[in-house]
Amino acid sequence: MDPRSLKELLEKVKEGAVTPEEAAARLATLPYEDLGFAKVDHHRALRRGFPETVFGAGKTPEQIAAIVERIAAQGQRVLVTRTSAEVHQMVAQARPEARFHAEARCLTVETAPAHALPGRIAICAAGTSDLPVAEEAAVTATFHGATVERIYDVGVAGLHRLLDRAETIRQADVVVVVAGMEGALPSVVAGLIDSPVVAVPTSVGYGAAFHGLAALLAMLNSCSSGVGVVNIDNGFGAAHLACLILRGRVPPRP
Amino acid sequence: MDPRSLKELLEKVKEGAVTPEEAAARLATLPYEDLGFAKVDHHRALRRGFPETVFGAGKTPEQIAAIVERIAAQGQRVLVTRTSAEVHQMVAQARPEARFHAEARCLTVETAPAHALPGRIAICAAGTSDLPVAEEAAVTATFHGATVERIYDVGVAGLHRLLDRAETIRQADVVVVVAGMEGALPSVVAGLIDSPVVAVPTSVGYGAAFHGLAALLAMLNSCSSGVGVVNIDNGFGAAHLACLILRGRVPPRP
Amino acid sequence: MDPRSLKELLEKVKEGAVTPEEAAARLATLPYEDLGFAKVDHHRALRRGFPETVFGAGKTPEQIAAIVERIAAQGQRVLVTRTSAEVHQMVAQARPEARFHAEARCLTVETAPAHALPGRIAICAAGTSDLPVAEEAAVTATFHGATVERIYDVGVAGLHRLLDRAETIRQADVVVVVAGMEGALPSVVAGLIDSPVVAVPTSVGYGAAFHGLAALLAMLNSCSSGVGVVNIDNGFGAAHLACLILRGRVPPRP
Amino acid sequence: MDPRSLKELLEKVKEGAVTPEEAAARLATLPYEDLGFAKVDHHRALRRGFPETVFGAGKTPEQIAAIVERIAAQGQRVLVTRTSAEVHQMVAQARPEARFHAEARCLTVETAPAHALPGRIAICAAGTSDLPVAEEAAVTATFHGATVERIYDVGVAGLHRLLDRAETIRQADVVVVVAGMEGALPSVVAGLIDSPVVAVPTSVGYGAAFHGLAALLAMLNSCSSGVGVVNIDNGFGAAHLACLILRGRVPPRP
Amino acid sequence: MDPRSLKELLEKVKEGAVTPEEAAARLATLPYEDLGFAKVDHHRALRRGFPETVFGAGKTPEQIAAIVERIAAQGQRVLVTRTSAEVHQMVAQARPEARFHAEARCLTVETAPAHALPGRIAICAAGTSDLPVAEEAAVTATFHGATVERIYDVGVAGLHRLLDRAETIRQADVVVVVAGMEGALPSVVAGLIDSPVVAVPTSVGYGAAFHGLAALLAMLNSCSSGVGVVNIDNGFGAAHLACLILRGRVPPRP
Amino acid sequence: MDPRSLKELLEKVKEGAVTPEEAAARLATLPYEDLGFAKVDHHRALRRGFPETVFGAGKTPEQIAAIVERIAAQGQRVLVTRTSAEVHQMVAQARPEARFHAEARCLTVETAPAHALPGRIAICAAGTSDLPVAEEAAVTATFHGATVERIYDVGVAGLHRLLDRAETIRQADVVVVVAGMEGALPSVVAGLIDSPVVAVPTSVGYGAAFHGLAALLAMLNSCSSGVGVVNIDNGFGAAHLACLILRGRVPPRP
Amino acid sequence: MDPRSLKELLEKVKEGAVTPEEAAARLATLPYEDLGFAKVDHHRALRRGFPETVFGAGKTPEQIAAIVERIAAQGQRVLVTRTSAEVHQMVAQARPEARFHAEARCLTVETAPAHALPGRIAICAAGTSDLPVAEEAAVTATFHGATVERIYDVGVAGLHRLLDRAETIRQADVVVVVAGMEGALPSVVAGLIDSPVVAVPTSVGYGAAFHGLAALLAMLNSCSSGVGVVNIDNGFGAAHLACLILRGRVPPRP
Amino acid sequence: MDPRSLKELLEKVKEGAVTPEEAAARLATLPYEDLGFAKVDHHRALRRGFPETVFGAGKTPEQIAAIVERIAAQGQRVLVTRTSAEVHQMVAQARPEARFHAEARCLTVETAPAHALPGRIAICAAGTSDLPVAEEAAVTATFHGATVERIYDVGVAGLHRLLDRAETIRQADVVVVVAGMEGALPSVVAGLIDSPVVAVPTSVGYGAAFHGLAALLAMLNSCSSGVGVVNIDNGFGAAHLACLILRGRVPPRP
Repeated sequence: MDPRSLKELLEKVKEGAVTPEEAAARLATLPYEDLGFAKVDHHRALRRGFPETVFGAGKTPEQIAAIVERIAAQGQRVLVTRTSAEVHQMVAQARPEARFHAEARCLTVETAPAHALPGRIAICAAGTSDLPVAEEAAVTATFHGATVERIYDVGVAGLHRLLDRAETIRQADVVVVVAGMEGALPSVVAGLIDSPVVAVPTSVGYGAAFHGLAALLAMLNSCSSGVGVVNIDNGFGAAHLACLILRGRVPPRP
Repeated sequence: MDPRSLKELLEKVKEGAVTPEEAAARLATLPYEDLGFAKVDHHRALRRGFPETVFGAGKTPEQIAAIVERIAAQGQRVLVTRTSAEVHQMVAQARPEARFHAEARCLTVETAPAHALPGRIAICAAGTSDLPVAEEAAVTATFHGATVERIYDVGVAGLHRLLDRAETIRQADVVVVVAGMEGALPSVVAGLIDSPVVAVPTSVGYGAAFHGLAALLAMLNSCSSGVGVVNIDNGFGAAHLACLILRGRVPPRP
Repeated sequence: MDPRSLKELLEKVKEGAVTPEEAAARLATLPYEDLGFAKVDHHRALRRGFPETVFGAGKTPEQIAAIVERIAAQGQRVLVTRTSAEVHQMVAQARPEARFHAEARCLTVETAPAHALPGRIAICAAGTSDLPVAEEAAVTATFHGATVERIYDVGVAGLHRLLDRAETIRQADVVVVVAGMEGALPSVVAGLIDSPVVAVPTSVGYGAAFHGLAALLAMLNSCSSGVGVVNIDNGFGAAHLACLILRGRVPPRP
Repeated sequence: MDPRSLKELLEKVKEGAVTPEEAAARLATLPYEDLGFAKVDHHRALRRGFPETVFGAGKTPEQIAAIVERIAAQGQRVLVTRTSAEVHQMVAQARPEARFHAEARCLTVETAPAHALPGRIAICAAGTSDLPVAEEAAVTATFHGATVERIYDVGVAGLHRLLDRAETIRQADVVVVVAGMEGALPSVVAGLIDSPVVAVPTSVGYGAAFHGLAALLAMLNSCSSGVGVVNIDNGFGAAHLACLILRGRVPPRP
Repeated sequence: MDPRSLKELLEKVKEGAVTPEEAAARLATLPYEDLGFAKVDHHRALRRGFPETVFGAGKTPEQIAAIVERIAAQGQRVLVTRTSAEVHQMVAQARPEARFHAEARCLTVETAPAHALPGRIAICAAGTSDLPVAEEAAVTATFHGATVERIYDVGVAGLHRLLDRAETIRQADVVVVVAGMEGALPSVVAGLIDSPVVAVPTSVGYGAAFHGLAALLAMLNSCSSGVGVVNIDNGFGAAHLACLILRGRVPPRP
Repeated sequence: MDPRSLKELLEKVKEGAVTPEEAAARLATLPYEDLGFAKVDHHRALRRGFPETVFGAGKTPEQIAAIVERIAAQGQRVLVTRTSAEVHQMVAQARPEARFHAEARCLTVETAPAHALPGRIAICAAGTSDLPVAEEAAVTATFHGATVERIYDVGVAGLHRLLDRAETIRQADVVVVVAGMEGALPSVVAGLIDSPVVAVPTSVGYGAAFHGLAALLAMLNSCSSGVGVVNIDNGFGAAHLACLILRGRVPPRP
Repeated sequence: MDPRSLKELLEKVKEGAVTPEEAAARLATLPYEDLGFAKVDHHRALRRGFPETVFGAGKTPEQIAAIVERIAAQGQRVLVTRTSAEVHQMVAQARPEARFHAEARCLTVETAPAHALPGRIAICAAGTSDLPVAEEAAVTATFHGATVERIYDVGVAGLHRLLDRAETIRQADVVVVVAGMEGALPSVVAGLIDSPVVAVPTSVGYGAAFHGLAALLAMLNSCSSGVGVVNIDNGFGAAHLACLILRGRVPPRP
Repeated sequence: MDPRSLKELLEKVKEGAVTPEEAAARLATLPYEDLGFAKVDHHRALRRGFPETVFGAGKTPEQIAAIVERIAAQGQRVLVTRTSAEVHQMVAQARPEARFHAEARCLTVETAPAHALPGRIAICAAGTSDLPVAEEAAVTATFHGATVERIYDVGVAGLHRLLDRAETIRQADVVVVVAGMEGALPSVVAGLIDSPVVAVPTSVGYGAAFHGLAALLAMLNSCSSGVGVVNIDNGFGAAHLACLILRGRVPPRP
């Protein structure tokens, strides 16, 4: 029924009975509960405005390859997180345009160019061990159409490195800050700027780091306002939130 | 401005009006970034673009009244959070325009109209016990110049109440979601919309709620992307982050 | 039956066929309650009314095969949870009717048809990663004689998927809800229906999910009444509880 | 009734008494699911089939009295949990039929007789300190129309006391088991019977009881199947779940 | 005795004095173990061999006074722990022989002399803040008939104080060691002696002591063997265990 | 110096200047701090009265074999815990009398018969998964010279199994109770007997068992007095404590 | 001095003024290590080289006054931490020179001038709420004879304030850093200097600060080396450690 | 030097050799502090006064070899922690002077002799399982130029072993104390001496040791003052802090 109603609407557009503007407006307000699409994720991706993402952990290479192919076959762009070179080799057989981002452990299939987002995201990382998470964020944001500035190895133990980059950070519209161990970087960064900060604790560290708990608690207790925290190691989620923030922003300051 | 004052200093060195030794001494004491202000809080407020806020908990009424007066005397607007009617009475003697927001436990002194922010913030609260935190967010956002839509008592146990308000939520530019107990509301809201969500766990609940820990963990693990989490009961912080997000946005959709 | 066997023993004492000393000795070795069986597990299964279950984790394939054979040889049906295809191959040599349920990681030997339970159990799962636990519940409930309705991939991030199935869920007599990450689904489901909900947190998630702790706490703090929680990943336990609830119920609503 | 009111509305549309536009407008404001009421709590209570409950903690006596009166004025029965004799005195001025259950810290206003539920609930409590929670469960269940059997002070340290009551427990259709400290009672009870057990950990104990955490973990890890756990000290929730289980059951065994 | 009474019953069946039906009924209602007492606590005290104890916390002075009187009226000795001078005054009206042990927060009514236990218990306490718990242990042990040696203020920060008392400790048959903060004392004491150690963590300390958790974990991880741990602040429990250990011992070494 | 003073003492014995009795007395009181033995563990073993034990985990087979040989070469008996069949093979080349206890993961070299302890230890285990820990306790106690009664698979889910063995348990002088999951068995056992109970939580269980934390907390909060708790999975420690308790006891009751 | 008194005793033995027997007896009662004092605390203070300290929390004003008088009467200087103005009033009656440090909640009685320590301690505090702990450190260090530099309100949210004081911090010989909330300050400070840092987490913060746990974990996981951490709110302990570090240092750099 | 280079720059401005614009630009890119180096780690090492360290965990052998070579090629000494013999073999091909410290899991390349530090560090370890952490500390301190005294296997279970070494410990200028399990050793050591103690909890232990948490909490709650704690297993960090303390000390006492 729902696909039918969608088709009917589109038919009416075709027939001129409904203007495209009207159709767009109606599609935008389509009730969540009854629109119905066979493939749920397609719907969600469309509704929330970003291409599809597959969480690769815990899926077999075969499963991932099949899902990717199903999405790409519809002409949609797809991002796979927490995956491996092995999966890339399997996917690349059918989709040679697939690209593996080794440090980010991500795979992208760009069936079409990304829709560019306004503004700029700065991605700061405290240490080199935090790079896989930072790169997951960077690849995700780039894939979503954002302009990304990488500012790595600026942990608070060497403040001059951070301050050298302060101006660049200040010019970003959103700043994603990735840090493990004591997780102090988001507080310091947020104190320097007037843009929103998305903080990502990482599981980097040992002993009383308790797999990222120390950094997570630190970020939640930031003495600087303007910090929103995502789950431990969740580079994808941070970039996704940053891109939602970018959408609707005025073009970046020159 | 700051680079300018630096250049001025150097010009004076060139002109011989300042000796290199004097310049070195002054540079050494200059605040790294933007060249300092005697009054720190003024500085921070100005730099980050929002009026001043005083965290009232743990301060005596006298202390709060003195701080408020010092700020207001400079013509600045001031917000006090976690405060009481008793403090309001003391402040109102010198500042009759001071207003107490009982449910939010906030006090505001509006020495000047707020600078209006573009867009709109929806503030959702799960239950009536979450209202103090939600109101702290609402008062803060209003004080910062935001247009606020209150959507209260829409906990997931009665989904129809939430769905009735879905369209309003969807039209907001940022959504602050306040919930205690199992903290499920941010996940559900984020799944319905394409704007960023700022999630605030509250300490509402008992037993295994562990003073907000259950809601906090739930929000950090949201299966919906696009959720940034702040500290337990931190309504102020959530509104502040939401206002940072609003700044720079295009005017709200009509 | 048991009181009867007790009376028979006492009759024999009265008749002199058994001396008081012998009776005392036999009574001393009788299980306290209902008067025993040499094989304890047989006893428990019979007493509590469901066929036997073997928890496979931590047992060698040889051990499991031996236990299964011992039970099946008595004509009893047997369920093995947390097991593998390797165990199935070993069991199937002696019991070709053994069946392996791969996703549920369960093995069943149906030496006789199950005794059908009245009513219906709906098993809801939030995400595809929760399926092994959901399937453990489904296989267990089916094995116990229940009619099971699988309602999978209805996580709260895509509410329309859940609402599409709301009517089916509402018609069930008991609902088992399986969810990891933020564990919000039981609260939402319980708010939609008037049947008891058995909630199963799963260890799905990462970082601050803390191996299921986040989902567990969320479910214990459900703002919807009518939710009973079992251990993390305990699909078997949830189904068992659901079947106990079904027993004694009137036939399902038409 | 709700479907009826929906039909009535549609009938009126058919008869012309209500225009389609008016009907559409009214339907648009109806709660999503089952067609709504202005007063949310009324709706939920009706939909889920039990009378209304007010969680008294954190509400002022005046607030509680007002809510109670509003509900009672509609001829509905109402239960207030976590309340005090002070509230009772205030309520009793307008509603002399109000009754205070001191040990349960509950207040009931029985504007009409309860609708009797089939079967029987046994409520077991381990120690005398657990009685407030057990009584909250007992008062709730009675108020919901259930027949309740109180079996108190049967902690596992004195097993004979429990075994003395084993037959009574076995004859119940659902058993609510309340225990603090090491929380062992639900495991022992569930091992003796073939009915579902609802386990309520209490915050009774000190030191490493950690306010009920020890009992909670014990109950979640019960080696006996058939146990569903609710939040710490949640006697109301346990009774509510037990009553949901009772509904639809065949009359109790004679 | 119990097997005897069982045989007697069976003899009567054989003799026809009791019908099998009657015997079955009586067996069914017989407490499993030792054939019951109307008053449970009396039973437990008698069975386990020590006089009665009342845990005073959470009981009103009136309740405690009533319980004490009921027990004392039967000529039994009674110990109340976690109580106050106020309770003592109330009890002393009826029982002038009641004695209040202020530091131990205990009340004793010695209706008869204690039955002396063989051997000796040394009770070591690390700091002066641990004395209430240590005294609860000392009063309990004395009340149970043990000879007690108090060895206080021997924390590991001043090892010479402990070593000065080493010989006394070594001569004890059981050693109760009470310590808060880092809880190191039981490890050190157990390394010096060849008697069993009962370790009692106290909630003394602040910050990362987490109300006794630090001391508790330390004691459970003692590098010295021969240490059994009881709950935080459980001086009574430690003394009770120590007295159980004493019973059956040969007279102390001269 | 210390070995020298020991030699001097022995010389004087040789010369008749000191009687052996006097020498024994002096050796028994030798101060801890200055006696000095090259091999510390020999000293500790002698002083505390039990043969030597080697904790095998984290040591290489070669290391263990060397240590064992060094001890055995002095004619002393030795126990290795947490070890493997591989280590046994290596040790057995030099010490064919070495014996491996597979379930207990222990290795013993009995260079001489154990010195028999008075009394009897009952070792109760809740489930079959607890057997490795229970066997570690049993092998340790036997090695220390104790008479051991194994009472396995008596978990509280099947109370009749436990009650069948109650008399045997009651006759023991000390009872070691091993249980994982909800850890309820020590409470139940301690309620049935009047001997000290040494409780051993095991890491058996999953999910909210948190690797033995649930059982540990339960045992610390036992509502039965007379329970001392050791570390998770510490079967050796429990047996060692039980043997310390046995020493000095009168012969067991007939 | 202590070695001296030992020598004196031995000299007297040599001279015949003390018999060997008397000397042995006196030596036997001397504390193990270094030759003891009847009054333990006196001994410890002297041995470790700092005047005496009394932990005031949990002691009555009368108790504190008595202890202070006993120490002061011996001409010793005394510091009381965690105390109140009420105690000061009581002490000041006998000791008018007693001084109360309100913010530090400390009381000092300076019966003699402090023995000056070489070098300088910088005490940094992140926020004004951390001042009571910072002042406890400052008063303690001053009392111990150290030169103290207070550097307050230099939290990482306003980095310029900290950098303004960087040179002063760098010139200190030891730096005590006090911070609550996310506890980031020690990492930042340690990265700027080459002196040891003593980090003190405070319980300042709310929600996920968990009473100082967040700051504690952050400090333990500092990405800057050279940081030693003390207990939450333990300003005294930090200052004590800093003073131990100062002792033996060369005079401060000019 | 740095103030000097700043002055030189300003002199050139005065002389006209550098324009104010150029000077402003160069100042803007100068590292905050002074000096600025392309290679950050070089900078940090120089600034903080110790040679470079590489944390080996999580880096590939190739990465470590490359980093080591880059540092060594500049004539600098380098220490790699948490590494393996495999890495050593790779490094040794280019740098035959590289040395592997197996127990410490460290690799050093001594391109030049260390700059000797004044004083002495005693490194105490409780048990043999703590040696890898203790050796990491010992190798680090030696590499930093400190004189190290190893005092191993002095756990509190055998106090005489510790007391035998007390004099040696007392003569050290700083004492690093390494302990797992109950972590009691730092408290005992700090009570014996008047030098600062750096405490290192290790993850040695099992069950309720919770991977070093028990030892960590114990050390933070030490009843002896003068203890600074570092992260679990952080031997390097402890030694680094100890060396910072040594610097600036007067030569050790003779």
